[in-house]
Amino acid sequence: MIENPYYTRDVHGDFDLISVGELQLEEGGTIPDCKLAVATYGELDAAKDNVILVPTWFSGSHQIWHDVYIGPDHALDPSRYFIVVVNQIGGGLSTSPHNADDPSIAMSSFPHVRIGDDVVAQERLLREHYGVEQLQLVVGGSMGAQQTYEWAVRFPEKVLRAAPIAGTARNTPHDFLFTEALNEQIWSDPGWQRGEYRSHTEVEDGLTRHAHLWGIMGLSTEFWKQEVWRALEFESKEAFLEGFLEPYFTAMDPNDLLATGWKWQRGDVSRHTDGDLPAALGRITAKTFVMPITEDMFFPVRDCAAEQALIPNSELRPVEDILGHLSLFGVAPTYMPQIDKNLNELLASDV
Amino acid sequence: MIENPYYTRDVHGDFDLISVGELQLEEGGTIPDCKLAVATYGELDAAKDNVILVPTWFSGSHQIWHDVYIGPDHALDPSRYFIVVVNQIGGGLSTSPHNADDPSIAMSSFPHVRIGDDVVAQERLLREHYGVEQLQLVVGGSMGAQQTYEWAVRFPEKVLRAAPIAGTARNTPHDFLFTEALNEQIWSDPGWQRGEYRSHTEVEDGLTRHAHLWGIMGLSTEFWKQEVWRALEFESKEAFLEGFLEPYFTAMDPNDLLATGWKWQRGDVSRHTDGDLPAALGRITAKTFVMPITEDMFFPVRDCAAEQALIPNSELRPVEDILGHLSLFGVAPTYMPQIDKNLNELLASDV
Repeated sequence: MIENPYYTRDVHGDFDLISVGELQLEEGGTIPDCKLAVATYGELDAAKDNVILVPTWFSGSHQIWHDVYIGPDHALDPSRYFIVVVNQIGGGLSTSPHNADDPSIAMSSFPHVRIGDDVVAQERLLREHYGVEQLQLVVGGSMGAQQTYEWAVRFPEKVLRAAPIAGTARNTPHDFLFTEALNEQIWSDPGWQRGEYRSHTEVEDGLTRHAHLWGIMGLSTEFWKQEVWRALEFESKEAFLEGFLEPYFTAMDPNDLLATGWKWQRGDVSRHTDGDLPAALGRITAKTFVMPITEDMFFPVRDCAAEQALIPNSELRPVEDILGHLSLFGVAPTYMPQIDKNLNELLASDV
Repeated sequence: MIENPYYTRDVHGDFDLISVGELQLEEGGTIPDCKLAVATYGELDAAKDNVILVPTWFSGSHQIWHDVYIGPDHALDPSRYFIVVVNQIGGGLSTSPHNADDPSIAMSSFPHVRIGDDVVAQERLLREHYGVEQLQLVVGGSMGAQQTYEWAVRFPEKVLRAAPIAGTARNTPHDFLFTEALNEQIWSDPGWQRGEYRSHTEVEDGLTRHAHLWGIMGLSTEFWKQEVWRALEFESKEAFLEGFLEPYFTAMDPNDLLATGWKWQRGDVSRHTDGDLPAALGRITAKTFVMPITEDMFFPVRDCAAEQALIPNSELRPVEDILGHLSLFGVAPTYMPQIDKNLNELLASDV
């Protein structure tokens, strides 16, 4: 376990750390005492049927959902719903390489965790800790979309509605290679020391290069061409890199990024059906809005549309936004209105 | 000067090494004895008015033009035209960091060379060595397109027709950042030693990561999704990386890639007009076919279309191809017929 001031309540806001006990992992091995960092908004009603689950994305936490997506003016309205945001395993707040105090899973010893492991842990959390058996909605972006799909395929009876935003049910090979390149930036830093660095600051060079790849693939050609960073009050593209993307990623833990990167690369609901993606997506009973982002360079609309076509009760709802994948941050004023419109309609639909 | 077996006639086929003398550079400094590696096809006619010039792209040479684009079955027909392919400065065959025997410009001492310097050197070569004053066509892909635009803006009276393929007249900020990430892969390899390695093999790790970024951005999401590498007789995406992209780039010289990368990042015809791109492109008198590739992830069609709209006598002629930017290799059987159709029409047009 190493200290990293980024993964604290000072940075991410309040959350509960709740153990779901020993978690047997799909790849073998276990997390002996798996703690999930959970933030909830609103009140669980007596019937326990007003629950919305939000799994988190790569490098993200509940914080962005708190700051951008959840509130009385949004579809995710805590006055109506009990909204449970669960930080993913390995993401830095839940049990993760850098914060594990059990040496059997600390740092480079952290086991491979899959999307399915997160979903199993989340289901256990909801059932055992909150007594919740059914979800009005599962909604998540990017790796949160991967978990949303996994929920809808693995526990179809528990998921009434699903809204995967900017993500896929089965990761694409291009996406695998992009994530591999992100990982390589860390692996290639001599300071990484095969995962046994003493501080994430020893891997600053690798994390900086990692940030730069997000600059190329995470945003869009139009973001840069139209100099959208000016709206974010930066004076140049270099200032935006140095003032936003670099500090964002260099604060993080390299092993945590690698653990979640490994998980991202292998997201695939067709593991439930011997590789048959149509069969897996055909299991989904949730009313599903598939919501790709129009300028996304690694989850392009057509990849999401191809999956949507395989989901029985689904619609394709592209979100127009120039920021590309990182539109998920909700910077453009036109972004959240589209998200809310779709989620409001989805939540109002009969199921 | 260091030995590198890649930059030889054994690999690239025959060429002439022709000095254009001392080349004063836009950024200051000089190349005391600038040698251009030139391959010609066909015969210069008595009127010296049957000349087609082909500048080369990043990491490429005349070889791909010889192998794929030039021949009796192609628009670039040596029985009709005298086709001059000039390898760019810094590209490994012409005067470049790794092959300079003058210590004032060798390796890390190599000066900054701009697109405009290449075009000035090429104009001098054509005029002084071949006595050629006017070109039926300038055609090039990627950095070759940058040089094509530079020719058409700098020497409008000399360029009757222009066909920039998969490239821009003014490099975009996204493209700058992509190239910077390519460069970073080399800079971050401890074996690079600030450009004073003894062999390119000492930078193999950096060059391998460089190759991987081409895998993500140089091809397309659909290339990987449709497993087009199977048509190239590879058995997996990993085998394609290990069998094609990695050996392709790890054979090259790191400083040569950095020198041409620096040049690529700063291609900008509006340097002639104080940054006014419409004014620069408005100078072009050549009949111009702007030919972006539909799946290109860093020279997207819309960026090329925006420039085309500023060129008086021009048409947008997108090339449909799934390989993305690396469509330029001409692997898809549907690629060259589109190139030839457009170039035949362009060459047949009155000017």
